Amino acid sequence: MALTSWIASANDSNSDFPLANLPYGVFRHADKTRIGVAIGDQVLDLHACATAGLLDTLSAFIIHACTASVLNPLMSLGPHPWSALRGKITELLSAEHADEAKRLRVASVLVPMVEAEMQLPAHIGDYTDFYASIHHATRVGKLFRPDNPLLPNYKYVPIGYHGRASSIVASGHEIRRPSGQTRPSQDAAPSFGPARSLDYELEVGFFIGPGNSLGSPIPIGEAEQHIFGLCLVNDWSARDIQSWEYQPLGPFLAKNFATTISPWVVPIEALAPYRVSAAARPDGDPEALPYMASQEKAAFDLTLEVYLQSTQMLQEGLPPARVSQGNMRDLYWSLAQLLTHHASNGCNLRPGDLLATGTISGPDEGSEGCLLEMKHRAQPLRLPTGETRVFLHDGDQVIFRAFAQREGLPRIGFGECSGIVTAALG
Amino acid sequence: MALTSWIASANDSNSDFPLANLPYGVFRHADKTRIGVAIGDQVLDLHACATAGLLDTLSAFIIHACTASVLNPLMSLGPHPWSALRGKITELLSAEHADEAKRLRVASVLVPMVEAEMQLPAHIGDYTDFYASIHHATRVGKLFRPDNPLLPNYKYVPIGYHGRASSIVASGHEIRRPSGQTRPSQDAAPSFGPARSLDYELEVGFFIGPGNSLGSPIPIGEAEQHIFGLCLVNDWSARDIQSWEYQPLGPFLAKNFATTISPWVVPIEALAPYRVSAAARPDGDPEALPYMASQEKAAFDLTLEVYLQSTQMLQEGLPPARVSQGNMRDLYWSLAQLLTHHASNGCNLRPGDLLATGTISGPDEGSEGCLLEMKHRAQPLRLPTGETRVFLHDGDQVIFRAFAQREGLPRIGFGECSGIVTAALG
Repeated sequence: MALTSWIASANDSNSDFPLANLPYGVFRHADKTRIGVAIGDQVLDLHACATAGLLDTLSAFIIHACTASVLNPLMSLGPHPWSALRGKITELLSAEHADEAKRLRVASVLVPMVEAEMQLPAHIGDYTDFYASIHHATRVGKLFRPDNPLLPNYKYVPIGYHGRASSIVASGHEIRRPSGQTRPSQDAAPSFGPARSLDYELEVGFFIGPGNSLGSPIPIGEAEQHIFGLCLVNDWSARDIQSWEYQPLGPFLAKNFATTISPWVVPIEALAPYRVSAAARPDGDPEALPYMASQEKAAFDLTLEVYLQSTQMLQEGLPPARVSQGNMRDLYWSLAQLLTHHASNGCNLRPGDLLATGTISGPDEGSEGCLLEMKHRAQPLRLPTGETRVFLHDGDQVIFRAFAQREGLPRIGFGECSGIVTAALG
Repeated sequence: MALTSWIASANDSNSDFPLANLPYGVFRHADKTRIGVAIGDQVLDLHACATAGLLDTLSAFIIHACTASVLNPLMSLGPHPWSALRGKITELLSAEHADEAKRLRVASVLVPMVEAEMQLPAHIGDYTDFYASIHHATRVGKLFRPDNPLLPNYKYVPIGYHGRASSIVASGHEIRRPSGQTRPSQDAAPSFGPARSLDYELEVGFFIGPGNSLGSPIPIGEAEQHIFGLCLVNDWSARDIQSWEYQPLGPFLAKNFATTISPWVVPIEALAPYRVSAAARPDGDPEALPYMASQEKAAFDLTLEVYLQSTQMLQEGLPPARVSQGNMRDLYWSLAQLLTHHASNGCNLRPGDLLATGTISGPDEGSEGCLLEMKHRAQPLRLPTGETRVFLHDGDQVIFRAFAQREGLPRIGFGECSGIVTAALG
């Protein structure tokens, strides 16, 4: 039976942020930057909680981490402190536990979510992006190699590359269409100008907790102790820049102009009821090598959705339209495997580093995690206005949403990861 | 005519650090972390200079930047403040200008270089590595595609990728041989274990100064205003991991286990007398696209050397042996072009970000910037002991050195970028 909160909006079955979720974020309000916890349509100000003595039963180092202006100190603490803090916040917000006097004290440190200006949740030292969806890799590979879409390493190596940390922005930031070098055909000379093939990529990101020191790998059995929580990631991609630049060292300017993340970080503990066995690795595929041996229920049953709203839709009063829906359980590699592989050569992961899964796609039409994959459809994507999209137009807003739900449990949502495409510099 | 210093060791023609150089670094001494300037065999403590009033004629914001424990604040200031500070330090250390009383005050804020424990010079937010040597790209390409070594984009796009910032270490840090997935042959199954093909890569790095905001490119004519200074970079590489993992997204675990940089950052102003026109782009090659049009004397005549000392050499009292020598003027792309290309899509570069050239090789045998390229030699590399090297052995120390010299000018050196390979984890 799910606990209810004395904050009524948290008990609304449509809310992303019930008492069972309690995601962390960083917000600005009244000229202050604070760590907050989302609850219904409110944000609990953790710094104010600490000052008001509401966290006093916790260890001093946990309370101290709550007063920072980024989540890195809290991320560095590890699962037991995370769990202790989560338990305390649950107690403060639960209808069962809080008495009237305490509710008044807690109510005084709530900020209406509409007034909270969300920031990046952490100082992101390094950002790594993987390629963990075999359905995405296969569909994209087919465009280049119809008879041989998957490269020989795919089922052995969790393929990844380093992204750009400086250009990660929080949901809501405008995305300027990048300019770059492209070559329209193999015979043409390349030229420089606004990208014509701007795309989104639907991904899930996860923030590193304590991490490891340089030279010391993280065993697969300990990997999840280093995962603080999850968010949504839009790895905006300029496909025409990408196809011209990416060999032999991988994507660079095609992706580093901007990456959007959702501002609320859902604790891995909140997702525990939605653990499932991975679905994607078919019989006959090789076992993962022992250093990243598959774990039980290492996948998450998380529904992922892409919405799009064109300028014309906005003008006609039409809401964003859902253009695809997938599920995180379809990934070929678990988050734990990605993390352990990353550190397997001794590479050090630091608190606040962001790892992302790569585009998450399902096997069927309608579950493509980016527009590029929709090239396999018989018809281009059609919007409610009758407009079609092969790639993004200026003015298009792309919104990602995600939720976990199960019979008898409240629905847990991720909030939005959104961005509007603006015109390239003239 | 070159100025001399009242610090005698700075006037030694073998010193890397004459008065004309004045590189910046960060050092620890007596439990304090300070910005320092190398002069002969001494380090000038800039924090102590500020405290002692020796910088008082400078603007307050310059003095403040000198009291930080990383170079980022100084890097953010731009060319005019850099030049003002450099002029003041030159005055303090010059035999012409310093009177006896001032010399005593300056002498009191010198630290012997042997007592200074060098740190990373900056907080490196993002690290990008390019592939700017056409000789390197051609020799490596020949190993994979004998008839078609250079890909079609090479002469148009400065190829680059994002490296890992967390695993950048200062010269002297031990380099543990990484483990990883490799596949010995196309028919074999991959396995996990210590890399067998460990290599170095000889590169030059440059630190970003003021940088740009997200969405705003940096015009080619302004690019050098954003270059604070140069250092040496060893982009350690595990070739067997690389060849198995790198498609389609580029190198990842093959390189992110460690990158070593030399701790002294040579100001771009110190290198001005060694500017030359780029040498490598032959007639008939396409012009650079207008957004990164070639500039006059955008290259640097900088000699680069690789030394190697095996355990056996050490035991026999043999000094490190020079195994190759190249020159930075042989790069296909200038530093300004790399920087402008990087920001051309609006990607934001921040003070302290590190960009590196990629392996610098010349056209001839003896100028290969990594061991992999020496596969084209008739005989493997032979050390003075008679030992041979195809790739690095445990216990090998790799040392990079660099210097600029010209008739009538003092030789300017970079100090060392060194690392010893230690055995993989058992």
